[in-house]
Amino acid sequence: MDTFDPSLPKSITRLIEEFMKLPGVGRKTAQRFVFFLLKKDLSFQEEFGNALTTLTKDIRLCRECFHFAEGDLCEICRNPKRDEHIICTVEDSLDLLSIEKSNAFRGKYHILGGIISPIDGIGPDKIRIKELKGRIERSKGKIEEVIIATNPTLEGEATATYIWRSLEKLPVKITRIARGLPVGGDVEFTDEVTLARALENRSNI
Amino acid sequence: MDTFDPSLPKSITRLIEEFMKLPGVGRKTAQRFVFFLLKKDLSFQEEFGNALTTLTKDIRLCRECFHFAEGDLCEICRNPKRDEHIICTVEDSLDLLSIEKSNAFRGKYHILGGIISPIDGIGPDKIRIKELKGRIERSKGKIEEVIIATNPTLEGEATATYIWRSLEKLPVKITRIARGLPVGGDVEFTDEVTLARALENRSNI
Repeated sequence: MDTFDPSLPKSITRLIEEFMKLPGVGRKTAQRFVFFLLKKDLSFQEEFGNALTTLTKDIRLCRECFHFAEGDLCEICRNPKRDEHIICTVEDSLDLLSIEKSNAFRGKYHILGGIISPIDGIGPDKIRIKELKGRIERSKGKIEEVIIATNPTLEGEATATYIWRSLEKLPVKITRIARGLPVGGDVEFTDEVTLARALENRSNI
Repeated sequence: MDTFDPSLPKSITRLIEEFMKLPGVGRKTAQRFVFFLLKKDLSFQEEFGNALTTLTKDIRLCRECFHFAEGDLCEICRNPKRDEHIICTVEDSLDLLSIEKSNAFRGKYHILGGIISPIDGIGPDKIRIKELKGRIERSKGKIEEVIIATNPTLEGEATATYIWRSLEKLPVKITRIARGLPVGGDVEFTDEVTLARALENRSNI
């Protein structure tokens, strides 16, 4: 990466390089960010900088579900209004946020912290399946259903199958989020695999 | 902007909000950035944060061309190898960087710091035309040519015309960057205004 630009002061080049470390940010975007910040006053930059340096200061992982938390338990696990009988298993906290935004789920979560992917050297032991199993066992029947909400990709499906097999013997119902046409989608332009799934998973109107 | 997410620790929400202030960054992108940073170690976050807080610490504007500089003069104005007889006038430092990357210009620059845009309340006095004029006068004939490299947009062309009129009486050649087909472009799909310009500005092979 040739990011060093002799025509720019070092502090600018340095911040451009930092921004370029972010996912999906190339040189042009990083430059745009930095030149935007250069137009702002010092307090703006300091606030941003402090938010960065103190990011993980008070953060740990929830001891129940492994979502980010400020104390021992995350806000969701601490909330008595959440249904403790149903757990939604997701790859990471970003997936949790998306599901939360849909307002369609009032149970609790389990963050796997990754997906099984032999190519990247991530085996089943590297993600929190054991912890999920332990949680169900400890609940002594309180947890009635586990929804597996990994992505409908090759790795996501394989991980779902692996989880399903790991939990098979436990007295818990295991479900998988539906695969079908996205709302607003178009039958004509939907790929055949999705169409096949949408037909299989059809329901009564 | 509803960025407050009760399921997330405050320090995470806060940094997401900071990232959302950057141009072109929405909630999803900001979340992706922050969750990426959460996976990195503390020193990574601190380095990034420090680069932000110290961004403008030693930075000022070059007293000649108004590009960012660490001392009185920017790296380009300080470089004795740059041709001081020709000045390229651009809207901002980002345009300077793009031209530098082309390696097609070895003269010096002049940063206008904006573009004339009556709708946004930016008159000719708000950009550095007076300073450009002063620079040419002070050079006592050393500056032989001024290339006006504002964008080929309505405002850019109007600004170019205004600059041209302001400098008309000075003993300096005034040129404008060519407008034509971008390299790799396609005659069939080029708009008529660009085509007309490309024909007007045609040159011998």
